[in-house]
Amino acid sequence: MGRSLEVTWNDGRSYAFPLIWLRDNCDCPRCLHPHTRERTFDLLTVPETPRVASAGLAGRGAVMVLWGDDGHTSKYEPDWLRRYAFESSDDDLTRPDVVLWDASLSGHVPRFDYRAVMESEQGLEAWLSALLGHGVAVVADTPCRDREVVRVTERIAYARRSNFGEHFEVQTETNPINNAYTALKLPNHTDLCNWERSPGYQFLHCLENAATGGESTLVDGFRIAEALRRADAGAFRVLSTMPVLFRFHDTECDLRFHAPIVGLDGSGRFERIRFNLGLFGVQALPPDETAALYAAYRKFAQLVRDDRYQIRFRLRPGDLLTFDNWRVLHGRLAYQPSTGKRHLQGCYVDRDEVLSRLRMSISAVTDAA
Amino acid sequence: MGRSLEVTWNDGRSYAFPLIWLRDNCDCPRCLHPHTRERTFDLLTVPETPRVASAGLAGRGAVMVLWGDDGHTSKYEPDWLRRYAFESSDDDLTRPDVVLWDASLSGHVPRFDYRAVMESEQGLEAWLSALLGHGVAVVADTPCRDREVVRVTERIAYARRSNFGEHFEVQTETNPINNAYTALKLPNHTDLCNWERSPGYQFLHCLENAATGGESTLVDGFRIAEALRRADAGAFRVLSTMPVLFRFHDTECDLRFHAPIVGLDGSGRFERIRFNLGLFGVQALPPDETAALYAAYRKFAQLVRDDRYQIRFRLRPGDLLTFDNWRVLHGRLAYQPSTGKRHLQGCYVDRDEVLSRLRMSISAVTDAA
Repeated sequence: MGRSLEVTWNDGRSYAFPLIWLRDNCDCPRCLHPHTRERTFDLLTVPETPRVASAGLAGRGAVMVLWGDDGHTSKYEPDWLRRYAFESSDDDLTRPDVVLWDASLSGHVPRFDYRAVMESEQGLEAWLSALLGHGVAVVADTPCRDREVVRVTERIAYARRSNFGEHFEVQTETNPINNAYTALKLPNHTDLCNWERSPGYQFLHCLENAATGGESTLVDGFRIAEALRRADAGAFRVLSTMPVLFRFHDTECDLRFHAPIVGLDGSGRFERIRFNLGLFGVQALPPDETAALYAAYRKFAQLVRDDRYQIRFRLRPGDLLTFDNWRVLHGRLAYQPSTGKRHLQGCYVDRDEVLSRLRMSISAVTDAA
Repeated sequence: MGRSLEVTWNDGRSYAFPLIWLRDNCDCPRCLHPHTRERTFDLLTVPETPRVASAGLAGRGAVMVLWGDDGHTSKYEPDWLRRYAFESSDDDLTRPDVVLWDASLSGHVPRFDYRAVMESEQGLEAWLSALLGHGVAVVADTPCRDREVVRVTERIAYARRSNFGEHFEVQTETNPINNAYTALKLPNHTDLCNWERSPGYQFLHCLENAATGGESTLVDGFRIAEALRRADAGAFRVLSTMPVLFRFHDTECDLRFHAPIVGLDGSGRFERIRFNLGLFGVQALPPDETAALYAAYRKFAQLVRDDRYQIRFRLRPGDLLTFDNWRVLHGRLAYQPSTGKRHLQGCYVDRDEVLSRLRMSISAVTDAA
């Protein structure tokens, strides 16, 4: 019988499934815990090539296997087998095409209604899909209540804590522990890039915005990285390979991490931008590497504030700005605190939780359709 | 003057500092915010090679630079400059040598006293250093109070939430959502390896352990990976390069991630082990890759439970077992719930927070000495 079991469908197509894969993926209640849905079958209780005592078809084409080693019986549905044999093996539907954008997104940031997001599965799915595809979306008419931003994260899972708390207040403070808590201009940046675990998504809820100035800016970091790759391959190579020190240090913590500014995944795709002038550490490199890094870094920094790529807009009370903090850099112009109050509440949600909620939401919407 | 400033010390040694590095690292209150300690200097306000109007020495050998572009004056302390020129450029003291261990650690797991950990900086530093070096440590005589495990995380920062809550109860449940909440044997595993953001450290606080069975097991995953690399380079290559699907799926979430079982960092050092028989997903690979993966995976699984590498012990009420969840695999033998109660409370703390606290602790201990 060999090491695989060949299954043939009525249309003549056939596929040879490795026996060890079949045995490991038996989903009977003894092998897959019926409540936890975790595997309880212990792979090492059978040989590398399990013996098949007999195999055959049951009703509706299910494949039945009686295993010779432990006398266990497994049943495999034909549709399930066929999917692994011929169809897209990946049933994760949470990868919409990433839409890179530039200044032409101005006035076209995807907007979603708070009630639709909070009360319907379709609304939730539409918002989260945009957040994945564009990396930015606004939830409009979000009630201007204290900590409403945290309640919106609970529509997904929960807020991701950091040294700045479960949520944070973006307003002028007397003794700020973060440049965001001043009235200074904030050049476009990613948050907490000094963490190994930089937050996946950031939510900023505008409660008041009456001060002169303080317009928000956003830029697609993947678009910038793409522009740099085309314009200067050497600078791109430096930024995508040289680990850079990022650091935040106060009386409570000393959070630092080394990573390239442009993080690529194993396939060379953009994964995570780390860019923050304020958190760029004191680099300790040989002088020639220091010079190469600064030259490349400055080119990236110029593109990040280039009006060809950046959008600029004014947040209105009730706007909940949500964006991918691994991709989209955000900033604001300086404002004049004496002219009126500006108050945002912010928090983070991580990527695992957003992807999980979107998977569940897509399933729910598909099942209902 | 060129692109660098040459500084010579009294012993004749000299070093040429890149001008852009000097300018960017000016730590005056205008360039580095005095409260936030974040840089407010905007790198793009000066040219790639800043002009030096004049440079000279002030008291105690400080280097003074008057910059020609913006008329700004910077002051650099000689010790600070010397450190970046000649000494270990990295002042991060949180990298104790990783001590790989095997079964000979039995009876020698580092133990620390709860009061010393909670009340003294030295106690905290000793515990966290062991946690980094050995990847495992016990905090003994931890009061058997509800949620004391969370209070211990607050000595570091806070507990890291997951879909299982801020903390979790490890005891037999009627409708468990996790195999840990049964009385089943749990083969050695890492937790939440189906997350991109698998937790850095796990804390398990033993409140009661009166049931027959339920001994704890631990194995050093890096030691296992090292053993596999020596014994079977081909299997090691498969496990350190082939992304594997891990997945947990219930009515609330669908958390999945693809990653190699043995994660290596950019320098080829062990970074993170992901191993959990229960969370190993239905792999969708060509049959030959499936066969190669299972063959290598089984070899790793055999080493993971090999008595040459594994330690086995009984947790006592008051023992708080803490370990590196990126490195140390944990498990337990089956127990008989009818013979007595077994109750652990667990939670996670992430790596950024542990490293930050250890840095602060080392500084405090050093300053006090």
